[in-house]
Amino acid sequence: MDELKVILKQKAAELEKTLAELIELKEDELAPDLSEAMRYTLLSGGKRIRPILTLLTAELLEGNYQAALKSGSALEMIHSYSLIHDDLPAMDDDQLRRGKKTNHLVFGEAKAILAGDALLTYAFEILAGLELEPAKKIEIIKLIAVNSGRQGMVGGQTLDIEAEKKELSLAEMQKIHAAKTGALIKASVLSGVYCSIYSEAEKAALEEYASNLGVLFQIVDDLLDLTGDTEKLGKNVGSDEELDKSTYPKLLGIEGAKKAALDHAQKAKESLAIFEEQAEVLIMLVDYLLSRQH
Amino acid sequence: MDELKVILKQKAAELEKTLAELIELKEDELAPDLSEAMRYTLLSGGKRIRPILTLLTAELLEGNYQAALKSGSALEMIHSYSLIHDDLPAMDDDQLRRGKKTNHLVFGEAKAILAGDALLTYAFEILAGLELEPAKKIEIIKLIAVNSGRQGMVGGQTLDIEAEKKELSLAEMQKIHAAKTGALIKASVLSGVYCSIYSEAEKAALEEYASNLGVLFQIVDDLLDLTGDTEKLGKNVGSDEELDKSTYPKLLGIEGAKKAALDHAQKAKESLAIFEEQAEVLIMLVDYLLSRQH
Repeated sequence: MDELKVILKQKAAELEKTLAELIELKEDELAPDLSEAMRYTLLSGGKRIRPILTLLTAELLEGNYQAALKSGSALEMIHSYSLIHDDLPAMDDDQLRRGKKTNHLVFGEAKAILAGDALLTYAFEILAGLELEPAKKIEIIKLIAVNSGRQGMVGGQTLDIEAEKKELSLAEMQKIHAAKTGALIKASVLSGVYCSIYSEAEKAALEEYASNLGVLFQIVDDLLDLTGDTEKLGKNVGSDEELDKSTYPKLLGIEGAKKAALDHAQKAKESLAIFEEQAEVLIMLVDYLLSRQH
Repeated sequence: MDELKVILKQKAAELEKTLAELIELKEDELAPDLSEAMRYTLLSGGKRIRPILTLLTAELLEGNYQAALKSGSALEMIHSYSLIHDDLPAMDDDQLRRGKKTNHLVFGEAKAILAGDALLTYAFEILAGLELEPAKKIEIIKLIAVNSGRQGMVGGQTLDIEAEKKELSLAEMQKIHAAKTGALIKASVLSGVYCSIYSEAEKAALEEYASNLGVLFQIVDDLLDLTGDTEKLGKNVGSDEELDKSTYPKLLGIEGAKKAALDHAQKAKESLAIFEEQAEVLIMLVDYLLSRQH
């Protein structure tokens, strides 16, 4: 596990550097305050799990690492924009994110909305500028647009808001999570695939891995919201309960949720069998996520 | 002028059809209410001036008309999303748009924010799916991302909000408008160029045309806000004054603004000289915009 932590730390540092360079104030910056608001959330830390998945996948397939760094950064920008918009008073109305005041509390609602819009738009600018052949870039742009839009993340967020104060079945909740969280995690892994030369079997294996990892991620997140502490999480715990959201622990009980996490962890690992020991880091990542639940 | 009106009407009808097809409810639609909110604003009419510019430019250069139809539709989605977000209470707080209640008054703020996010994301999905060679698609995606993002439309909207209740110089106001309105108009014309085979001289001429047309468009808009009637405009008149915004008539006087409009109309027409009578429709369009002011 210590070996993985070193790897995660190193990847996160590379990503911080790349993100900071990409979002640097330009000499002819049109609206410096807008860039400030974009940087505030984008560079406020976070585990960078999505772009790390892109990097690890590209490494596994011996793909174009520089392109993976930038694709991953674009995905992190999309994740950041979604956090800014999700935290708005009209949405989840959150005050704390990664231990800091949420974007709209610092910059005002108008600028927070615009900073989100600009991050989303900038993500596609970055993808269009990847150093890959055009057909590969188009593949990645399409993948990311589909998974972060109406049939992916934004659609899932819509269902999530509509579901507040409603009793959901397990299947309904899974559908929401698959879109809201799972789609972007799938896009992260597949972006790494598309930065590489791959066989259909490899792609299918990694897609299956991503899909199970996404669910595992959500279950652990739900458990942490219930049992973690605010300081460590950097956001207020118990917010799911406050919003009366359907969560895995609520629907399955804490023990049931832990069992489900274990199942998906197992499936994620099994899906990587064709890579044998090459996939060691992606497998350690599963155990690491599993270990975060209390 | 009647000839132009027939052309505009026919192009608008083609665009309505394409937009309606693109935004059709899918069989496996994840969040039907989100699509409903997207459709509400996207299909609420409007002059479709941006995609019409794309179509006319592609026609002038004998380019790929189907690709221009879809690129233009993507641009119209970006325009639509910007209207939805601009109308939000935290931004301009508008109640009326194209004669209908604004999006957030019908669907609530949360869904309006998400509908905007989804329209923006979907625009890039459509562009990635154009029937053009990949390198051409990348050119268009980059063009549109740059012009609608932090250094273009969103940056301009940020400056516009910051400028409320401030006295601006003419140069400052022009900078804001160039970004907020001009950038997307430029992207509309250049998308038509990129759907075609073109010389650098043709591209430069059309870029110059777009730049002057953008300013003309803004001046006429400012004049209409001052002197038009609410019913005809489909939005509340006098809203600029209410927000104490800097406008061309405010900085130059009504006569001065009309003279500036005339100047830019002249420059727009002159820039098309190399096309001779081939550019007839684009020239008629300038006169048509000019005639809309009272």
